[in-house]
Amino acid sequence: MKLTDEQIRHYHHEGFLVLPELFGPDEVALLNGEAQRILSTQRPEVVREKDGRTARTAFAAHTYNDAFARLGRHPRLIEPAMQLVDGPVYIHQFKINAKAAFDGDVWQWHQDYGTWARDDLMPEPRALNVALFLEEVTACNGPLMFIPRSHREGKLEAGHDLDTTSYPLWTLDNATVARLAETGGMVAPTGAAGTVLLFHCNLVHASPSNISPWNRTIVYVSACHVDNHIRRFQRPDWIAHRDFAPVDCLDDDCLTAPAAAE
Amino acid sequence: MKLTDEQIRHYHHEGFLVLPELFGPDEVALLNGEAQRILSTQRPEVVREKDGRTARTAFAAHTYNDAFARLGRHPRLIEPAMQLVDGPVYIHQFKINAKAAFDGDVWQWHQDYGTWARDDLMPEPRALNVALFLEEVTACNGPLMFIPRSHREGKLEAGHDLDTTSYPLWTLDNATVARLAETGGMVAPTGAAGTVLLFHCNLVHASPSNISPWNRTIVYVSACHVDNHIRRFQRPDWIAHRDFAPVDCLDDDCLTAPAAAE
Repeated sequence: MKLTDEQIRHYHHEGFLVLPELFGPDEVALLNGEAQRILSTQRPEVVREKDGRTARTAFAAHTYNDAFARLGRHPRLIEPAMQLVDGPVYIHQFKINAKAAFDGDVWQWHQDYGTWARDDLMPEPRALNVALFLEEVTACNGPLMFIPRSHREGKLEAGHDLDTTSYPLWTLDNATVARLAETGGMVAPTGAAGTVLLFHCNLVHASPSNISPWNRTIVYVSACHVDNHIRRFQRPDWIAHRDFAPVDCLDDDCLTAPAAAE
Repeated sequence: MKLTDEQIRHYHHEGFLVLPELFGPDEVALLNGEAQRILSTQRPEVVREKDGRTARTAFAAHTYNDAFARLGRHPRLIEPAMQLVDGPVYIHQFKINAKAAFDGDVWQWHQDYGTWARDDLMPEPRALNVALFLEEVTACNGPLMFIPRSHREGKLEAGHDLDTTSYPLWTLDNATVARLAETGGMVAPTGAAGTVLLFHCNLVHASPSNISPWNRTIVYVSACHVDNHIRRFQRPDWIAHRDFAPVDCLDDDCLTAPAAAE
């Protein structure tokens, strides 16, 4: 699994890259089954929405679930990440974001690196998100919204939002979002389950609440160059990981091969 | 301005019809300038969001603003409405919905006729919405979402929602929305400013909050067959109008001709 020079150029220019249906229906069905099971459990890693009931995000599933452990070492996710940060990567964060039907809440306008730098002292923005759609993402179920090319602005001023949602986040003010969107515009990449979205850790993004009857589950593997590991350990290790060893990829059929062998 | 047989068939089959850029940039600029001025005023007809600050909707602008008075008699809006209800129409409701940048809130899943029947005793669903986009509608600024063909279900069970937003509405429960979307799917019609969207008063629809930096102002002219006028007058007359006389159309250039003459 190698990105082409054109794909790499697009990522660096726009701040993101879409790889439609990179994973097949069998792989997605396996992962989404596990994801919904995890989201329905009560454990500290599964953060609820403000309603106290709906699962918002499950952290670190690769540390306690076999399918997601294999996904965290999948060459279709990790090799592109290595190409884009130009070296070996470790997993800084691993999230299953539910954006549940009817009840999934907003993620405010932010840069992921804004939080990783301020809370975790990640030295440089040599990191990215590799997002895998476990369900179809449409205009109707709370798609991610990107401001193209906003990653070129570097780390922007942000405020620590403890009120809007159940999860603390360093967020941008409206004037900054408006200024960036004035030049960059805004896109809401959609696609079938199995689609992968790579985006720079400084790309400004958000997602609205989901008022549709369909869940919109996405797995985010946040990959960071191993030399660029975090320096502060104030957040729980299931939010900001401490294992800085390079990810060692499994085979391309690692998700379905074990199932086939059973 | 006449709809074709194919357009009429599409409306009755799907419950809605999109007419891209039916109004030109000069007409839209005039109307949107007036709309933003009205939305910034303090008067009973301008309902605020729950934040008490952001304008949510301005009612009855055709009764106190010259440009909207002319729009309410515009042949490009009224003649299609007459074709679709097969006879003369009066204006039951006239709304400018702001869906303001960053702060515009959700409209819950509902049928307009659900509220018109229960609150105003409109006898039959012989009415429709004629919506004119005063700004571009994209996937990012809180587009309307329709469940195609849901108008064929007739008036559905609904509950009076007084809590979710600042405006009371008879809304559908999640199970009903999920059931209808299972067969009908869901669409979010987008388009340039000037686009007109006609939809049946029993079509199930909603719109999410607007987290983008762009307003999404839409004017809704709710046209009802004159024989089908409301029988109960419990809501203010600026929400549910009492003038049941057939709308008498002006000329096609009625919006811009007076300006040209000034």
